[in-house]
Amino acid sequence: MAMLVQKYGGTSVGDAVKIMNVARRVAVAQAAGNQIAVVVSAMGKATDELIALAQSVTSNPEPREMDLLLSTGELVSCTLMAMALRELGVPSISMGGAQAGILTDTAHGRASIVQLDPARVQRELDAGRVVIVAGFQGITDDMETTTLGRGGSDTTAVALAAALKAERCEVYTDVDGIYTADPRVVTNARKLPEIGYEEMLELATYGAKMHPRSIELASWYKIPVLVASSTQDSPGTLIHDLDNGGTAMEVANKVSGVTYERNVARITVRAAPDSPGIVANVFEPLTDAGISVDTIVQNASAERLTDISFTVERGDLDRALEVSRRVASDIGAADCVANDHLGNISIVGTGMLNAPGYASRMFRALSDAAINIEMITTSQIRITCIVDEANVDEAVRVLHAAFELDHE
Amino acid sequence: MAMLVQKYGGTSVGDAVKIMNVARRVAVAQAAGNQIAVVVSAMGKATDELIALAQSVTSNPEPREMDLLLSTGELVSCTLMAMALRELGVPSISMGGAQAGILTDTAHGRASIVQLDPARVQRELDAGRVVIVAGFQGITDDMETTTLGRGGSDTTAVALAAALKAERCEVYTDVDGIYTADPRVVTNARKLPEIGYEEMLELATYGAKMHPRSIELASWYKIPVLVASSTQDSPGTLIHDLDNGGTAMEVANKVSGVTYERNVARITVRAAPDSPGIVANVFEPLTDAGISVDTIVQNASAERLTDISFTVERGDLDRALEVSRRVASDIGAADCVANDHLGNISIVGTGMLNAPGYASRMFRALSDAAINIEMITTSQIRITCIVDEANVDEAVRVLHAAFELDHE
Repeated sequence: MAMLVQKYGGTSVGDAVKIMNVARRVAVAQAAGNQIAVVVSAMGKATDELIALAQSVTSNPEPREMDLLLSTGELVSCTLMAMALRELGVPSISMGGAQAGILTDTAHGRASIVQLDPARVQRELDAGRVVIVAGFQGITDDMETTTLGRGGSDTTAVALAAALKAERCEVYTDVDGIYTADPRVVTNARKLPEIGYEEMLELATYGAKMHPRSIELASWYKIPVLVASSTQDSPGTLIHDLDNGGTAMEVANKVSGVTYERNVARITVRAAPDSPGIVANVFEPLTDAGISVDTIVQNASAERLTDISFTVERGDLDRALEVSRRVASDIGAADCVANDHLGNISIVGTGMLNAPGYASRMFRALSDAAINIEMITTSQIRITCIVDEANVDEAVRVLHAAFELDHE
Repeated sequence: MAMLVQKYGGTSVGDAVKIMNVARRVAVAQAAGNQIAVVVSAMGKATDELIALAQSVTSNPEPREMDLLLSTGELVSCTLMAMALRELGVPSISMGGAQAGILTDTAHGRASIVQLDPARVQRELDAGRVVIVAGFQGITDDMETTTLGRGGSDTTAVALAAALKAERCEVYTDVDGIYTADPRVVTNARKLPEIGYEEMLELATYGAKMHPRSIELASWYKIPVLVASSTQDSPGTLIHDLDNGGTAMEVANKVSGVTYERNVARITVRAAPDSPGIVANVFEPLTDAGISVDTIVQNASAERLTDISFTVERGDLDRALEVSRRVASDIGAADCVANDHLGNISIVGTGMLNAPGYASRMFRALSDAAINIEMITTSQIRITCIVDEANVDEAVRVLHAAFELDHE
């Protein structure tokens, strides 16, 4: 008998028919002799509707109130899922974040799980019930309801799997696995049967469909995560511990996938005086304004002067530019320029670790396709290039071919 | 500085505009120097929509799951109300039943409040905030969410007022007070400036718009309850301690109001053997079937035989008749007949206490109007007649005139 945690996203529980379909899948998994805890997101557009409701009352809702409001979305879907299972004759019980023992910090709207006490969930599972847990939410020491922010329900599922010492966390969604590239862009993209945590983390950070924080959590607790379709029976992709020792040797000289993001904007603060603390002076005000900065590149532009470039999501550009212009003026930089039509493309793979040649092969492939590279940033197992947004699709296809990802 | 609890029903918080209107009223009451706790029902049809959602999944939802589902309706309205107050610059905080310290028994769908610990609500009030509490819900010792059933939000409000030792509980609704009779039936019905708990309890039980359980609770804790309009500024009706001693003397020889209910059905078990335990044999199976029985009358019909009549809500008639026919056969009664087109009319007033003549005056007035009385039932301060449903409106008008309720 295996302990499994299954997570179903909002589109998978979008209406009564879909909820019944998911319930049937859960029933089959339980009938096969498994103990099942299910984590659900809010139904379809429910969260968007609650946000719209709040905005009809105020343009600036308190994060604390917003959390209590938004938490209702998952309570609705989890009670309906429990009812659907009972309708199929499967004993089940739903639980809000507090009942499921999910203790978080007090950062409303983006809380982190501090502790997960699975005692009650375990007791219900041992009594033969399927336990349905509301994703995305928790409770503080002071009984305040919190939400976990982006990627919240995936994080709930992985944390629950860790606390229950589950054999596996299964994330069911509208894609049926992790691909070497987005199949909508690259027609011969290949589904990966498995991938290591670190590679998946890089893929997730740079465009793949799971949120990096849940991957990170899975990696800490070594919880295997299966990403698969909520409607089909194809095998999906298993994210698990492939990162170390012998296994990494087998995948040497190998790129696992190509990923991309659109909607990237860049700001360059030009000819800033190159003195100690200048970078902090630029970025602290952005952090204070709640603007998330991605890639950062600093080049000397002339003696004692430096250019500082960074990327932000396009939606944040106007605010970021306003802050940056003020900063540029304060620190005596020449000016501040922006480009709001960028994207990024990345190649990811543990095979790149300590192996030279991947970067130059990537740059050559883009160059052969006449794609100009605007910025470059790398990690140990990832190389990312910022390019014009119009070239993103072509760049993904070129790199997919250059690294021969269409066959194993 | 007074402590007030204000309750707003579902139609008063039906959309963003109405929520803002209520918030303005609350803001005015707070600006006048009061500490305000607000109890809200779910928005307009929200509860009905949640019930429909559950029924789209199962025809027989578990009460425990239903409670967790329905509790979200009030969480939504109370967070929106808190946001609306902040939008007006009034510090505010919303609380679910658990946060507000509302401990109930485990009777899902119709829970009773066991204890209300107002510590946190009081702390927030003392910090200068308006506290918005989700009505209709509580939590058990085991952290299970419960709902209080019919009249739940009124009960939350009165219980909170009692726990906070509030000066008054104000129930704002779509009627502007308690009338001597339904103004839609009796055009010259008069709004009562005040009424005693016991009289209000009888009025509420027999058709007036508040739920008797909240009146009963207010009576136990001697909490004055003001029933008034949520949109107008008319004075409303104060329900308070008028029942005892001297005050009752002042209202002697006085009927406070006429009330009515439609949709009453009657079942008569005819010619049952008149042996000990026969009444229990009839009503126990009805209780087991969850059918609420109202008026009961038993008459001897012939030697050692008895007729037992009782009324139920018309919606329960089919089930009640099925149970009763089985019982009639079991106990050897002759047969079982039903009349499903009845209503009841009542006169209520502490003035009737120990004062003869009210009953005969009532029966005479109905007789003069050629209205036949099918059954009679009385309490110390109420006389109720069951009549044909077609005669209900006329009976109310006749009695309103007979007891001179159109002037003080």
